[in-house]
Amino acid sequence: MQRAEATDEARPSAKWLARRETIVDTSARVIARGGYHGTGIAELCAANGLGKGALYHYIGSKEELLAAIHNRVMDEALQAVDRVRRSVERPSAKLAMLGDEQLAIISRYPDHVWVFLHDFHALTGERAQEFRRRRHEFEQAVEDIIREGTESGEFREAEPRLTALAWLGMYNWAYLWLHVDGPLAAHNVAHRFAEIFLRGIAGPAPDSP
Amino acid sequence: MQRAEATDEARPSAKWLARRETIVDTSARVIARGGYHGTGIAELCAANGLGKGALYHYIGSKEELLAAIHNRVMDEALQAVDRVRRSVERPSAKLAMLGDEQLAIISRYPDHVWVFLHDFHALTGERAQEFRRRRHEFEQAVEDIIREGTESGEFREAEPRLTALAWLGMYNWAYLWLHVDGPLAAHNVAHRFAEIFLRGIAGPAPDSP
Repeated sequence: MQRAEATDEARPSAKWLARRETIVDTSARVIARGGYHGTGIAELCAANGLGKGALYHYIGSKEELLAAIHNRVMDEALQAVDRVRRSVERPSAKLAMLGDEQLAIISRYPDHVWVFLHDFHALTGERAQEFRRRRHEFEQAVEDIIREGTESGEFREAEPRLTALAWLGMYNWAYLWLHVDGPLAAHNVAHRFAEIFLRGIAGPAPDSP
Repeated sequence: MQRAEATDEARPSAKWLARRETIVDTSARVIARGGYHGTGIAELCAANGLGKGALYHYIGSKEELLAAIHNRVMDEALQAVDRVRRSVERPSAKLAMLGDEQLAIISRYPDHVWVFLHDFHALTGERAQEFRRRRHEFEQAVEDIIREGTESGEFREAEPRLTALAWLGMYNWAYLWLHVDGPLAAHNVAHRFAEIFLRGIAGPAPDSP
């Protein structure tokens, strides 16, 4: 009973969480312009239309805000990984599916990804570990799919880690040029990238994509 | 005469230039750790074992230092572009050659590239324009080779710009994990990447790599 009550008390309202999400997104935009170290709390207060006390009420600390910006992207990326892992498709289709989701996420969160890639070094202790763990999980998922495809013969024999790094580069680099309202729609880009990459690693079997 | 004398006077000695290069490299290492805005002149003085006056004598200004860090990488990258442009090889071999040089540069200058990618927004005016112009020249060279290969039939018909962006991502992303003394030698990585990418974009002709 005691425990259930404590949990109830600790759970914030949907409204509070939605407000926090908006603050995280607005702050990501500001930090992407000025950098994590270059952006002060006063600037974040102004951008969010909040006093210092109210801002801290939602974000806890500046470093917690940075972790929240990372998590907004990583939550979605790891949900995509889960969907792909549960899929019964062949490795090539799984890789195409993950690439499609990855580019959709990057195009929705260009500022978050910018902050994520530029300022992850500013995370410390537990938060830095958590960030590394989650990033590793994503990268490992790519490597696992490649390994699976190599074992089934769908992909050519090669170092799976290096092949995963090639894949990650091709897709993640899009944070520099892919925007949701840009001329290159994420889905079209993903289609073309999958075509290049999957032909590039296809095994000799004629049924490869 | 007047002109020749002025030029002679303006040309720094080889020793001075070598000293400046060392300062640029040491500073790149410091800025890669602390960020451009997060690194003060005092810190750069300490790292280089120089007083403020001596440091400014070599670097001119902090922004000029940032431009010099960029140029150290871009000079080499554009020299590689020149070599590849003069080559009489087929487009596939040209792309492999450029990739090989690109990864060698990234592995030699991980700190410079880090600074380059994270802090190019801090360049202003003329220097920002010059940076954009040189980066565009490199990207355009990749696109030109792809266009050439598509026209000759060596590569499949596709959007050359998008294909160039895929190539740039695959290779440039290596700045996050490729180091000259790391377990993955640049040349081996370049070989594997070229294999993936060139198979990925190869035309239907049986003589493609």
